[in-house]
Amino acid sequence: MNSGRERVERRLAAVLAADVAGYSRLMGADEEGTHAALSALRREVTEPNIAEHRGRIVKTTGDGFLAEFPSIVDAVRCAVELQREMALRNENLAKERRIEFRIGINLGDVIIEADDIYGDGVNVAARLEALAAPGGIYVSKVVRDQVRDKVDFGFEDLGEQQVKNIARPVHVYRI
Amino acid sequence: MNSGRERVERRLAAVLAADVAGYSRLMGADEEGTHAALSALRREVTEPNIAEHRGRIVKTTGDGFLAEFPSIVDAVRCAVELQREMALRNENLAKERRIEFRIGINLGDVIIEADDIYGDGVNVAARLEALAAPGGIYVSKVVRDQVRDKVDFGFEDLGEQQVKNIARPVHVYRI
Repeated sequence: MNSGRERVERRLAAVLAADVAGYSRLMGADEEGTHAALSALRREVTEPNIAEHRGRIVKTTGDGFLAEFPSIVDAVRCAVELQREMALRNENLAKERRIEFRIGINLGDVIIEADDIYGDGVNVAARLEALAAPGGIYVSKVVRDQVRDKVDFGFEDLGEQQVKNIARPVHVYRI
Repeated sequence: MNSGRERVERRLAAVLAADVAGYSRLMGADEEGTHAALSALRREVTEPNIAEHRGRIVKTTGDGFLAEFPSIVDAVRCAVELQREMALRNENLAKERRIEFRIGINLGDVIIEADDIYGDGVNVAARLEALAAPGGIYVSKVVRDQVRDKVDFGFEDLGEQQVKNIARPVHVYRI
């Protein structure tokens, strides 16, 4: 019935991409200190928060991670709580030692493999992350449309933006 | 961390609502024959097709069913195959004995319980189904946006429509 096409496993997922703004600068200034601070953040903040929102970390890079969530509402709440917690921690630190995440969130019918996820839905999340300001959360229009009646914070419309390697412009909102 | 709000289980799901067009007329004309024909359809066409696309039937009514799928691409392919199979079967039947489904598909972050699903995402799917022509498939804009680069059939824009008990107009497409 499926015209011989090989079936890949697809799944609707909320994709959250995050990285540390100014990672190279932080590492250049204090390699071991930055590494220790990032490890502590992962253990004490990122991993518990993602688990609490039923997400999973798909992969980590030196300065960031990619996570997926079954619910987009949970993904957005997770990002907001992460950024709030980071802001609290940064209050007590000298400016040059502050660690700030940029976060991008998208929703898509992605291709799932054992230890990675693929597809436009993932690529757009990474592009949104790259656009985001340090400490910020950028989401696509579909994310905003799906969650705006279900959460108690607002979305600022940043308009359509052309991003690298994505055919259609992405309509971007900032939380 | 979640401001004391009770946590409900949400999940991104593709929601497919279907019912039999003219069910009362069919039952009025031949109650036992219609019941037998619908049972055969469910066993031979609907259930295997939904299972093949990794969906599950959440509940059935006398003349229809509500199903959810982890992937929106799979949900749309399932609906197209269902309607094609029904059209083939109807070719050999007298007009008054033909059984035609109306199908509506939406995507949403829905609330999952053991044997039911809830939320705007479900309600909109049911409204799309009610709008659909016999043998037709109506979907919301978010469905069309998510699948249009991943399937080989087109979408006709039917514009925004106000539907019962849904605050915002729904942008409707016909496959």
